[in-house]
Amino acid sequence: MNKKELRVALLGTGFMGKAHSNAYCQAGHFYDLPWKIRRSLVCGNIEAELATVAKQWEWEETASDWRAAIDRPDIDAIDIALPNHLHAPAAIAAAAAGKIVLCEKPLALSAEEARAMVQAARGVPTLVWYNYRRVPAVAYARQLIDEGRLGTIFHYNATYFQQWGADTSRPATWRMDPALAGAGVGDDLLTHSLDLALFLNGRINEGMATARTFAPGRAVDDAISALVNFENGSLGRFEASRFGIGCRNVNAFAMHGSGGMLRFNLEDLNRLEFFDASQPSTEQGARDLLVTDMKHPIFPNFWRPGHIIGYEHTFIAALAEFIDCLANGKDFHPNFADALAVQEALDALQRSAKTRKWTEVPK
Amino acid sequence: MNKKELRVALLGTGFMGKAHSNAYCQAGHFYDLPWKIRRSLVCGNIEAELATVAKQWEWEETASDWRAAIDRPDIDAIDIALPNHLHAPAAIAAAAAGKIVLCEKPLALSAEEARAMVQAARGVPTLVWYNYRRVPAVAYARQLIDEGRLGTIFHYNATYFQQWGADTSRPATWRMDPALAGAGVGDDLLTHSLDLALFLNGRINEGMATARTFAPGRAVDDAISALVNFENGSLGRFEASRFGIGCRNVNAFAMHGSGGMLRFNLEDLNRLEFFDASQPSTEQGARDLLVTDMKHPIFPNFWRPGHIIGYEHTFIAALAEFIDCLANGKDFHPNFADALAVQEALDALQRSAKTRKWTEVPK
Amino acid sequence: MNKKELRVALLGTGFMGKAHSNAYCQAGHFYDLPWKIRRSLVCGNIEAELATVAKQWEWEETASDWRAAIDRPDIDAIDIALPNHLHAPAAIAAAAAGKIVLCEKPLALSAEEARAMVQAARGVPTLVWYNYRRVPAVAYARQLIDEGRLGTIFHYNATYFQQWGADTSRPATWRMDPALAGAGVGDDLLTHSLDLALFLNGRINEGMATARTFAPGRAVDDAISALVNFENGSLGRFEASRFGIGCRNVNAFAMHGSGGMLRFNLEDLNRLEFFDASQPSTEQGARDLLVTDMKHPIFPNFWRPGHIIGYEHTFIAALAEFIDCLANGKDFHPNFADALAVQEALDALQRSAKTRKWTEVPK
Amino acid sequence: MNKKELRVALLGTGFMGKAHSNAYCQAGHFYDLPWKIRRSLVCGNIEAELATVAKQWEWEETASDWRAAIDRPDIDAIDIALPNHLHAPAAIAAAAAGKIVLCEKPLALSAEEARAMVQAARGVPTLVWYNYRRVPAVAYARQLIDEGRLGTIFHYNATYFQQWGADTSRPATWRMDPALAGAGVGDDLLTHSLDLALFLNGRINEGMATARTFAPGRAVDDAISALVNFENGSLGRFEASRFGIGCRNVNAFAMHGSGGMLRFNLEDLNRLEFFDASQPSTEQGARDLLVTDMKHPIFPNFWRPGHIIGYEHTFIAALAEFIDCLANGKDFHPNFADALAVQEALDALQRSAKTRKWTEVPK
Repeated sequence: MNKKELRVALLGTGFMGKAHSNAYCQAGHFYDLPWKIRRSLVCGNIEAELATVAKQWEWEETASDWRAAIDRPDIDAIDIALPNHLHAPAAIAAAAAGKIVLCEKPLALSAEEARAMVQAARGVPTLVWYNYRRVPAVAYARQLIDEGRLGTIFHYNATYFQQWGADTSRPATWRMDPALAGAGVGDDLLTHSLDLALFLNGRINEGMATARTFAPGRAVDDAISALVNFENGSLGRFEASRFGIGCRNVNAFAMHGSGGMLRFNLEDLNRLEFFDASQPSTEQGARDLLVTDMKHPIFPNFWRPGHIIGYEHTFIAALAEFIDCLANGKDFHPNFADALAVQEALDALQRSAKTRKWTEVPK
Repeated sequence: MNKKELRVALLGTGFMGKAHSNAYCQAGHFYDLPWKIRRSLVCGNIEAELATVAKQWEWEETASDWRAAIDRPDIDAIDIALPNHLHAPAAIAAAAAGKIVLCEKPLALSAEEARAMVQAARGVPTLVWYNYRRVPAVAYARQLIDEGRLGTIFHYNATYFQQWGADTSRPATWRMDPALAGAGVGDDLLTHSLDLALFLNGRINEGMATARTFAPGRAVDDAISALVNFENGSLGRFEASRFGIGCRNVNAFAMHGSGGMLRFNLEDLNRLEFFDASQPSTEQGARDLLVTDMKHPIFPNFWRPGHIIGYEHTFIAALAEFIDCLANGKDFHPNFADALAVQEALDALQRSAKTRKWTEVPK
Repeated sequence: MNKKELRVALLGTGFMGKAHSNAYCQAGHFYDLPWKIRRSLVCGNIEAELATVAKQWEWEETASDWRAAIDRPDIDAIDIALPNHLHAPAAIAAAAAGKIVLCEKPLALSAEEARAMVQAARGVPTLVWYNYRRVPAVAYARQLIDEGRLGTIFHYNATYFQQWGADTSRPATWRMDPALAGAGVGDDLLTHSLDLALFLNGRINEGMATARTFAPGRAVDDAISALVNFENGSLGRFEASRFGIGCRNVNAFAMHGSGGMLRFNLEDLNRLEFFDASQPSTEQGARDLLVTDMKHPIFPNFWRPGHIIGYEHTFIAALAEFIDCLANGKDFHPNFADALAVQEALDALQRSAKTRKWTEVPK
Repeated sequence: MNKKELRVALLGTGFMGKAHSNAYCQAGHFYDLPWKIRRSLVCGNIEAELATVAKQWEWEETASDWRAAIDRPDIDAIDIALPNHLHAPAAIAAAAAGKIVLCEKPLALSAEEARAMVQAARGVPTLVWYNYRRVPAVAYARQLIDEGRLGTIFHYNATYFQQWGADTSRPATWRMDPALAGAGVGDDLLTHSLDLALFLNGRINEGMATARTFAPGRAVDDAISALVNFENGSLGRFEASRFGIGCRNVNAFAMHGSGGMLRFNLEDLNRLEFFDASQPSTEQGARDLLVTDMKHPIFPNFWRPGHIIGYEHTFIAALAEFIDCLANGKDFHPNFADALAVQEALDALQRSAKTRKWTEVPK
């Protein structure tokens, strides 16, 4: 591998293929990267979509079968943006070929599959696209927590509500097929919430969940809710739904600790609410922080205070940090092992939803 | 009983004694009541507090023992604002004496006790002070639901977070003694959320809960969270806490149905958020309704559009409607039977928190 | 005058008559007043309205002509809630009779009239019902300013927008008659904004205004906007309208100073936004203060943290402070002299709107 | 000029140079452009900055003097992102050389200069980077207005507040030198507000303004406020400040019309508040529209509903539309003539601030 160039093959040309393509284009613009990125090859089995992605995002070559990318010696990194059921075979093959592996979330269809992927990828650098860790407001939340500003955490509550599931006129996609997507909204949305929870609040010991399919004849879960106990003693609650009418993309969390409160909602991703309980009681109130200061994390790579960023910037920031880690021999997070932890928690909650019992998350 | 006069004895002189006193003063000012209210007798065993309440709120007589009120022929109605453990003995005695009975929430220390109270009070009119049904925004929410504007309900989520429990320097009150208050935050805050849920979304079939005491040595629950299944098919979630740092009095609910969404927070009680899913997709958004229109329920009795009301007005409106029901022989809600339903749901959730199992709410 | 009793005559039975009646009922409930208030006499020339107010709010006597109140020796205080054109004659007569005088805002139809009223009332205690100074959030804003927390003020901006003026189907009231109401929205709404500005930001040196009547055939101003220079060097802007579609009762101000920012809106009167520029830049954000703490001004007389108050409480608090001042020989504000300052500023702006020139406010 | 390729020379390497560079990179990714863009040449006289921009944003060539770009036959378009005083000479030279001209705002240092630029550029296509017209929420506001949803407009109010001017420790830039920047905040921020006002509400007939310099010794205006009369009969108000403590980048407007209200703030640029006065009064409230629907303007080129965009996307969308206009022979807006209208309004207001008189805006 040329030390100064990262030759990437992207597998998949859907919405995520576009988001990743953008990251490959933009990382070098906003960050002074140690390595140059080449958009070498894009693979997809929908011909028109492939052609469009290749042209719009200037990929050098195309292939209709993702397997074509695996063994090419002129590819350094494989980025998997395929439907969920292909994450494991593609990642395992790529790792076996010694490639750097980037993979869309969720890592796998099951915890078991995820374990096999972690095992297979032990020797190669990995990244999983739980991109919301790189929202500046989320990174800043983590910084406040690390500084002890929240104190002892009592409550961690997360909601991920979208509404499109209720529109039964939409054509079914692979997301509605359990063989391709997994159990439904849990794999799709709850995993994002779980990753943020593990990132911000630590390990989940056990949980109790319930799932629901509202649409007649649908084979996947439309909603899942859970109560959990975190290792740090806090009480947790998660709820994810595709029937959250009124919510386009509400990926929200709230933390209440002895030192204060934090609240976040992805629809307003440049903002973080912070309640500082160390202030005099008359001055305590939720502060509306616009996380665009030149001293906030991540943001300064983009624009200037008050000039907000969007959804896609989280991919750019994750990629830039990954390349920095690659070039400097540092560990990147979230990697396959981090994503396995999400999968283990999800698996315990999905089993709980079936058994109707509190279920431990394996260590 | 003089048909034109309601002679009231108030038992209790704490915060609720003040809120009820205010309602007795104000109901006749804002409503053209069919009966006149007389503040005949106030009872309390804390001498200084009793004197103050009697003087400030102009009660005609005082007594140090609440039992003094029960048998007086010149008293028509007994209003119980005593600590929780006295609700049952006072209410049963008052009902036995043929009095109209008004009782603070929660109705009782247990479902069993509540059942006995309902039984004892079968022959007399009753009111339970689940006053938040009379927030204009809540009443209007109910109206929208009754009109079918929310459609099929998918999610009913409620939060009641306060933060004072985390201040362990506060002197303990009867609220921290299970023999006087019941199991803690469930009896105190969750009951408000449950009453609103039953009012707005109907019966709860079963639930799964977990409770937590964060303060060392405390004998009552500081937090309780629950997942429930409603009879109407919707998925429910409740969480109540006295460790909700950042929240002074967040009594909030959100409903997501095929027709739209409603959101409410008691800290902004003049507002209701309404998302109407029947609008064109480009025009769909949460509407911030200031529920102070002359065509909104309840509000027109008070002031004019945009001139907001406060916490206390809910007591005034409840009382005025109760007196109207008394005068016109109509049933008032919430009465003892309605409050028993809250107690049954609470009881199932509190048992669930101990057994860690899904628990049915008895019909 | 009986030192322990304040015998009040209320002139006027409209919306303000109701708001004042409520204050007379409630002040002694929430405050331990040094003097007892008697609702001795209410005067009104609309028979049905008079009967209702007298009955609902328990006034001892009624009279159809306000002049009947002036000379009665058993009346200590005259409260004027009549249409604007009667403020001057009633107040001057009452003061001549040696009465304590309370008067609705605006004080007068003109600065000239107001000057005569101040002159006439030199010997008697006065109150003008610029009640919004007693919103706890406004009182707390003043406290923060007095403590220097805002630093040097750069901008003071105020908006008072209502929307009812655009509904031309409403029956005309005295508010649409310049002989009875003055020039329109300026006298009605802008005066509230001016009083708060003088209270919070000090004297206005000069201003430049423009006024507009949108409704065909209407004889009063529907909107007025102004730029002003404050004595403290800050730049001010005012806008008041009855055509502020979308705004039911938006009485708002924002102050930007070297130390921070404050924002307030009467529709959410329990809240104050405070931006503290002395915090680290990463932590600077508008704080949403719920001004219901037991250490906040005014609020603790009412309920407990998070149990919000409404519009009417501002009248109660003003009255309670006035009585405290009367009993203890202290000056109350806003009194006639304070209200004259509002009138002088208004007058300068209204002249400016006609001359289209910058106009000085006389000292 | 090759019809299938637009060879661009960018003059300037500051913050705007970066924003424009990004647009040239990204337009072809999100839009299927009729022409290919080549980043042919970037010019800048700060060597290190030039090298960085050239490298990070992959410009083919560099030059230290902007004049080097003007006469090159292999350049089709000149994009001026230089300090304000160079807009006129660069634009006039580029137009004289027959180039397509893109120019940062404000167009010029004065209306007179702007008129000369319009004259010089009559024969060539032009674009001025008043990019906020391409915020989807703003474009959607325009659509609602065009559909008559706002009815007759009564009020158009705009605020552009930043706070960095109060930080006198910042090193002075060309923005503080009137010879390079013009009169200050008016040229910088007010022009954005004026462009949006002209776009959304039409021509301004006359205005009355006042300006202020708060920082000692500063030669430019720190704040400017104005009242205006629009040709459509509505009353307008503008205020722009670099001393708007608490505001990082509040570029906001509100429109109140007989049909409803619109409100926008650039800090939350994915949102538009819409109050629809045609709804029943009980259901009227400001709707919080997340302008990310696939039927909203502009947004669908980027991501999917609820996946928000940022500041930079407005440049991308403007550029893409400009290229579409070039390829299809359509007029683009805002062009030099549109920007001249902004300049005429600004000029009238700045003259008014000096004369303290109402001042007409020339037609």
